[in-house]
Amino acid sequence: MQTAILRLNCEDKKGIVYNVSRFLYERGGNIIDAQQHTEELDNRFFMRVHFDRREMTITKEQLRQELAALADDFGMETEISFGDERKRMAIMVSKYDHCLYDLFLRHQYGEIRADIVLVVSNHPDLEHVAANFRVPFVCVPVDKNDREAAEQRTLELFRQHYVDFVVLARYMQILSPLLVNAFRNRMINVHHGFLPAFKGARPYHQAYEHGVKLIGATSHYVTEELDTGPIICQESVRVDHTHSVQDLVAMGRDIEKRVLAEAVKAHAEDRIMVYRRRTIVFT
Amino acid sequence: MQTAILRLNCEDKKGIVYNVSRFLYERGGNIIDAQQHTEELDNRFFMRVHFDRREMTITKEQLRQELAALADDFGMETEISFGDERKRMAIMVSKYDHCLYDLFLRHQYGEIRADIVLVVSNHPDLEHVAANFRVPFVCVPVDKNDREAAEQRTLELFRQHYVDFVVLARYMQILSPLLVNAFRNRMINVHHGFLPAFKGARPYHQAYEHGVKLIGATSHYVTEELDTGPIICQESVRVDHTHSVQDLVAMGRDIEKRVLAEAVKAHAEDRIMVYRRRTIVFT
Amino acid sequence: MQTAILRLNCEDKKGIVYNVSRFLYERGGNIIDAQQHTEELDNRFFMRVHFDRREMTITKEQLRQELAALADDFGMETEISFGDERKRMAIMVSKYDHCLYDLFLRHQYGEIRADIVLVVSNHPDLEHVAANFRVPFVCVPVDKNDREAAEQRTLELFRQHYVDFVVLARYMQILSPLLVNAFRNRMINVHHGFLPAFKGARPYHQAYEHGVKLIGATSHYVTEELDTGPIICQESVRVDHTHSVQDLVAMGRDIEKRVLAEAVKAHAEDRIMVYRRRTIVFT
Amino acid sequence: MQTAILRLNCEDKKGIVYNVSRFLYERGGNIIDAQQHTEELDNRFFMRVHFDRREMTITKEQLRQELAALADDFGMETEISFGDERKRMAIMVSKYDHCLYDLFLRHQYGEIRADIVLVVSNHPDLEHVAANFRVPFVCVPVDKNDREAAEQRTLELFRQHYVDFVVLARYMQILSPLLVNAFRNRMINVHHGFLPAFKGARPYHQAYEHGVKLIGATSHYVTEELDTGPIICQESVRVDHTHSVQDLVAMGRDIEKRVLAEAVKAHAEDRIMVYRRRTIVFT
Repeated sequence: MQTAILRLNCEDKKGIVYNVSRFLYERGGNIIDAQQHTEELDNRFFMRVHFDRREMTITKEQLRQELAALADDFGMETEISFGDERKRMAIMVSKYDHCLYDLFLRHQYGEIRADIVLVVSNHPDLEHVAANFRVPFVCVPVDKNDREAAEQRTLELFRQHYVDFVVLARYMQILSPLLVNAFRNRMINVHHGFLPAFKGARPYHQAYEHGVKLIGATSHYVTEELDTGPIICQESVRVDHTHSVQDLVAMGRDIEKRVLAEAVKAHAEDRIMVYRRRTIVFT
Repeated sequence: MQTAILRLNCEDKKGIVYNVSRFLYERGGNIIDAQQHTEELDNRFFMRVHFDRREMTITKEQLRQELAALADDFGMETEISFGDERKRMAIMVSKYDHCLYDLFLRHQYGEIRADIVLVVSNHPDLEHVAANFRVPFVCVPVDKNDREAAEQRTLELFRQHYVDFVVLARYMQILSPLLVNAFRNRMINVHHGFLPAFKGARPYHQAYEHGVKLIGATSHYVTEELDTGPIICQESVRVDHTHSVQDLVAMGRDIEKRVLAEAVKAHAEDRIMVYRRRTIVFT
Repeated sequence: MQTAILRLNCEDKKGIVYNVSRFLYERGGNIIDAQQHTEELDNRFFMRVHFDRREMTITKEQLRQELAALADDFGMETEISFGDERKRMAIMVSKYDHCLYDLFLRHQYGEIRADIVLVVSNHPDLEHVAANFRVPFVCVPVDKNDREAAEQRTLELFRQHYVDFVVLARYMQILSPLLVNAFRNRMINVHHGFLPAFKGARPYHQAYEHGVKLIGATSHYVTEELDTGPIICQESVRVDHTHSVQDLVAMGRDIEKRVLAEAVKAHAEDRIMVYRRRTIVFT
Repeated sequence: MQTAILRLNCEDKKGIVYNVSRFLYERGGNIIDAQQHTEELDNRFFMRVHFDRREMTITKEQLRQELAALADDFGMETEISFGDERKRMAIMVSKYDHCLYDLFLRHQYGEIRADIVLVVSNHPDLEHVAANFRVPFVCVPVDKNDREAAEQRTLELFRQHYVDFVVLARYMQILSPLLVNAFRNRMINVHHGFLPAFKGARPYHQAYEHGVKLIGATSHYVTEELDTGPIICQESVRVDHTHSVQDLVAMGRDIEKRVLAEAVKAHAEDRIMVYRRRTIVFT
């Protein structure tokens, strides 16, 4: 618990690893794991350091300040999170329950290092599921003529529950920039198609009509533009002529659950960094 | 060798299986394998019957004629092929040799039930590969201002070698309707992307820029419209931020080989039926 | 609903398809789907015919009797089931709930064509899960010194609920021949390892220690000998040095769910035939 | 080319990353990539550092010596290799050519960062393949009553060609400790089965008889004990009742090629570290 995760990115230059490891070493930090990546086309360096703070004598606040100084020297963007500050996660759903159940069950098995603090839905149908897992459920109906009202109400709820990130677990409403901007790179969606192939509605029907032999699902961060945010995880499964659209939908549920869970786990563990329209997902 | 494959399709109605099996039974045919499929949206029935002709007393020609009568009764489209008439296959290549080698080696191991009778290329580079496997190689350069001349020459070569079907093993030229129509549903291409996502050129670069986490390859029959013919086989492989475009290209070669080989095997064994833009690929 | 599934196997000989299709045709049956397979090493023929009974004028009982005559002629083993007689399924569990939830949820989505009529467990822990899905739950504790008593009680419960087949959804007790024989080829287990590699307990620990790069799970029919019954479905997932035993366990849960569900679906739809130690699983 | 790869392992303690990065920084080295891993059960730390030497002023020999001092301080085992000293690789084959072709073709496409300098075989059959790729081929027949003579001869050839590592590309002879010890952790084998399930001969026949629904292949370092050396890579593919043993063999060839190539690439790039019976394969 007395650990922290530092993520940074900057122009690639000599001595970064040395300076970062010295910074931590001199303050009593012990590196548990360090991973790095360079986007060669842009000469951009990315690093994630997981370290033990037990023998550090400075406070979190001091650590942040001293880190800011290092960041200045190297022109780094940095982000730090602490093992004793578990992320608080909200889930938005509509009527499909497979992703919701999947997240609750994985959470219960300890697979997701975050707390599920709230479920928001535009329909009342899934309240019983949240109730089974003893998580507050709030129904915020969406009036097509005043979407902003619903989003304002949702934002309020998120603030009230100190929500750190949001998971759209087959939430069937398009969001406005209001909510999207408030949770930039902190709102994860699952698209039931292999993006960028089948954007928009009814991707399995599109897949069937095209006669594709693979279907997929995609989890990604939400941006203003529909179904085009940075992709976090994708999986696919082979299909053939014997599969009806209904079969594709059923097979799709399985992969939707998997790609969404993988994204949620990675986000909760601060393993994702976004750069332009690509994600770096450390393992 | 004394076997035959009957493929048929017609409106789905009662008694088809009974009538087809009776037709064969009464003529001394013995069914080795029978597979069927119904496209439910269109109420269309498809069947592939593999049967033993050893005890049949009628000639191939008589079989065809009597089959035509049955087909008339049921409004069937039928196609019959004989085990002792091995298909003759031509390969078209440009400069990449991985699919070419793969086809030769699989053929040598007996995986492909067809004869490779000719390699045609718009470049002379791969002549040595064809020579190693003792298959005639003809270079037919393509003059951008007179593509038709090259296609006419190619068609002539195909006729001369009694070519039954054509495999574009990373042939880097766009074909005109002349060649496409002559080999409708008998010309197989491999596209180095997961169609319909990344049509056209440089699909791996497109995939990299989109930051996708899966890349794929697609084999399909060639139609007039670029990269949209009926899909036969698709596969994908997971990728992540550590993979450069070059890595994607290398990983792509592996899946290109597999999806092309799978399509070629299926075609050679008369396991594919095309209906609208979808394929039925029996196993 | 007015459909039936006929499964048969016999020595492979001429005219089987014809005679079976004639048998149905003459009685007004309409074949919806027919699949067949020959085990070549044994010259054994297997067939599954799905047919429409709406225009048949004979009763189920008559159909059974007339079929018996046909079976006699050909030395066939036959089995028939009817679409309006949905199979009744019991689930046995211990303390792990992931497979139990998965089966309930798939059932709720209509993926499993059977009724879940009973959950039996040697522990009281999962009663609330069964309660959520409104399925009777009975706790039958197992006394190590008198296993038979528990099995007798379980058998009684199965008879009382007209149970057709049993699913061991991570049931952590070894069964005696009493229960195994009563449900031969009707009791499905999930083994959390890639059989036959890691039989017995703690397969993920074994996998970790061997440093394997793939882990798997297996669903199979239960036989007297532990973890060696006919395999129905297997899947695997790649792992590497970064995965702890705990990670393998978590990844294992996902594939356990999938292979068990696939087996349950296939069994419920009468798509499985067992021959010696192998299964034929029609699609 | 002016790069080097340092691999090290030691008891896990504070300051290793800092000290290693300082060591390189102070000598003008620039870290291109660094990866690390801790085997938690043993508290053992592993690290691979890829660095640029262009601005280093010390010779390779000095670097080795100074590194030895650092290693002493931390009780490290270290290994260093240089980008301008490409590894030299020998291939041993018998009669199957699919892995041999695959390695040659991948090498030609630049996928394998090593030189293929020699092919040794106990049969003359594949000489023409080596000749096509202009690599020396030596036939060393194995006399069953004097295996050592053949191994001595082979060792001599390896020394003569400065062979750094050996790839058994379906070499069908069991090796004695003589050759195994000379190339400990430098000799890679491909086993055509999913180890540890199907050791020894005819794994596909074993798989068929067990009725498994997955087949696999395994690449591993060779140890004295047959088919039990540290596993480097494994893959599997789903099979069903329709596949004959011959089909399994054909499908097996594809995965054999892939797992062997993946192991060879990783070894050539110094990405593998062996610890006990497990491998750490950095990406």
